[in-house]
Amino acid sequence: MTGRLIRDVIVPALDRGRLGPLPDSVVLSDLGDAIAYTTDSFTVSPIFFPGGDIGSLAVHGTCNDLACSAARPMFLSLGLILEEGLPMDQLERILHSVSEAADEAGVEIVTGDTKVVPKGSADGVFINTSGLGRVDRSNRALTETICEGDEILVSGPVGNHGMAVMLSRAEFSFDFDLQSDSASIWPVVERLTALGPGLKFLRDPTRGGLSATLNEIGSATGLGLRIEESAIPLDKPVLAAAEMLGIDPLQAANEGKVVAVVGRGLGSKALDILRDCRQAAGSAVIGKITAENPSKVILTTRIGGARVLAEPSGELLPRIC
Amino acid sequence: MTGRLIRDVIVPALDRGRLGPLPDSVVLSDLGDAIAYTTDSFTVSPIFFPGGDIGSLAVHGTCNDLACSAARPMFLSLGLILEEGLPMDQLERILHSVSEAADEAGVEIVTGDTKVVPKGSADGVFINTSGLGRVDRSNRALTETICEGDEILVSGPVGNHGMAVMLSRAEFSFDFDLQSDSASIWPVVERLTALGPGLKFLRDPTRGGLSATLNEIGSATGLGLRIEESAIPLDKPVLAAAEMLGIDPLQAANEGKVVAVVGRGLGSKALDILRDCRQAAGSAVIGKITAENPSKVILTTRIGGARVLAEPSGELLPRIC
Repeated sequence: MTGRLIRDVIVPALDRGRLGPLPDSVVLSDLGDAIAYTTDSFTVSPIFFPGGDIGSLAVHGTCNDLACSAARPMFLSLGLILEEGLPMDQLERILHSVSEAADEAGVEIVTGDTKVVPKGSADGVFINTSGLGRVDRSNRALTETICEGDEILVSGPVGNHGMAVMLSRAEFSFDFDLQSDSASIWPVVERLTALGPGLKFLRDPTRGGLSATLNEIGSATGLGLRIEESAIPLDKPVLAAAEMLGIDPLQAANEGKVVAVVGRGLGSKALDILRDCRQAAGSAVIGKITAENPSKVILTTRIGGARVLAEPSGELLPRIC
Repeated sequence: MTGRLIRDVIVPALDRGRLGPLPDSVVLSDLGDAIAYTTDSFTVSPIFFPGGDIGSLAVHGTCNDLACSAARPMFLSLGLILEEGLPMDQLERILHSVSEAADEAGVEIVTGDTKVVPKGSADGVFINTSGLGRVDRSNRALTETICEGDEILVSGPVGNHGMAVMLSRAEFSFDFDLQSDSASIWPVVERLTALGPGLKFLRDPTRGGLSATLNEIGSATGLGLRIEESAIPLDKPVLAAAEMLGIDPLQAANEGKVVAVVGRGLGSKALDILRDCRQAAGSAVIGKITAENPSKVILTTRIGGARVLAEPSGELLPRIC
């Protein structure tokens, strides 16, 4: 529904030629160097969850949108909307977490704004970050060059953020050893750019999870995707929690992973490049681009069957990021 | 209180050398050309008011922060946080207003994000915009060069935005012919840059009004300001409304005005430069920088007395922008 709102109402009202393709961030060359620019608001609930909080998420989320434009994240803005009565120690924890995440991601918070609204007019804290990154044009991943035989890669186990936030909601009281994967993916992307034009697509599978991102590749190229279910990296606690809650972990959000499309035969080279990269532990080639089944994602199941992996139709969970 | 929160809690947690001076926007040269970058969140209530709405305000507010760094506003991001149940026609009116304001200000919305939160988790709509502008280094207004005898200028009547929003709150039912001044001030600033190094300071007197901005000049320079009360441009309906509500119009917010400090003797030249500028109608030289009364703003009243114009201690009205 939000997707339709954006496509049918918001973009048509504001597009002057750069909003339409809905990339992770826009690349501006009018300002000298090629600069990637993006924005994201964070309304996650609860604001603290295993493996992170709204502060670290707000830094990583925007850094990752820049990284998916093959841009090195450099500068962030920070807009805080605070609900009157937010405990000061919670604000301080969040700021500490922003600061730590920014240092780790190698970005600097260079401008900010703080608004306090009366109790009841917001829910604790909302954060907007926008970000600027430097693009090396030779690194641009070009979706147009994707073709049959290209290989699809994911940088590690999927579904952890979505499941961790879901389980930390008050209404659940299961005890799984499960943390959000919230992290900057730039170190992964930077290594992958060594593939040059062999790197064709980058996206972080946030809302809608791996499933949404794979379907996006299908829609963008008009080609098919064949994914091996057994090749998709999944942590045991994620599988266990997903099973118990009756949720498809492939639709659960990620905040520290990247899905890449690389040229035919380059999958194993990509895994080699990522071997020493801590942020890409558990990365795997999960499938291929096909000429059959145009625009569709076909999942080859463990028992040898095949099913269509549909685009998630509703959000599993509102306020996941 | 918000000011103290920013200075004592937020900036210390995040500053890596560029946040401390709290300028309207930061100027980045690491990305090639000198680029100004700023962010602002808008939580104004009500979202529609005479002379504008939260959409036009979100465009003008960020353009004006860029303009105050003598940067030509070029690109904006738009982050929407929508409360579930916001009527679609209201959203469409706001987007239309964003679009119109952006065209008029000569900026392009190049990236965006939309989050929908459950009913009760936000109040209608909050908007964050960030913005990028191009800085011509020769145009930089340098506060350090302000000295005794410099002249203080305001680009038109003050208090209109604050009074218009206040009167449109449900709790008031007076009928004044009064509109927000919400507009881009770049056309005013661009003309003033013709003064070269004679242009020493630029600020848009938003929250806290003219009074807050004048006190800021005092604090930043350690010099005194002598302001002629009779020279301050004020529209009659603003005066009438302010009197009826017992409010100081000098503390009421503006969203389309600029306060400038120009060199000794340059005040009338500045007014000449602005004569054909529609956005600077009613501009006036209102006072001078003095060596006496360091860091204080002294108002010479109409009846010849003098009083200290104190920094506004509380916000007249929360959610004014």
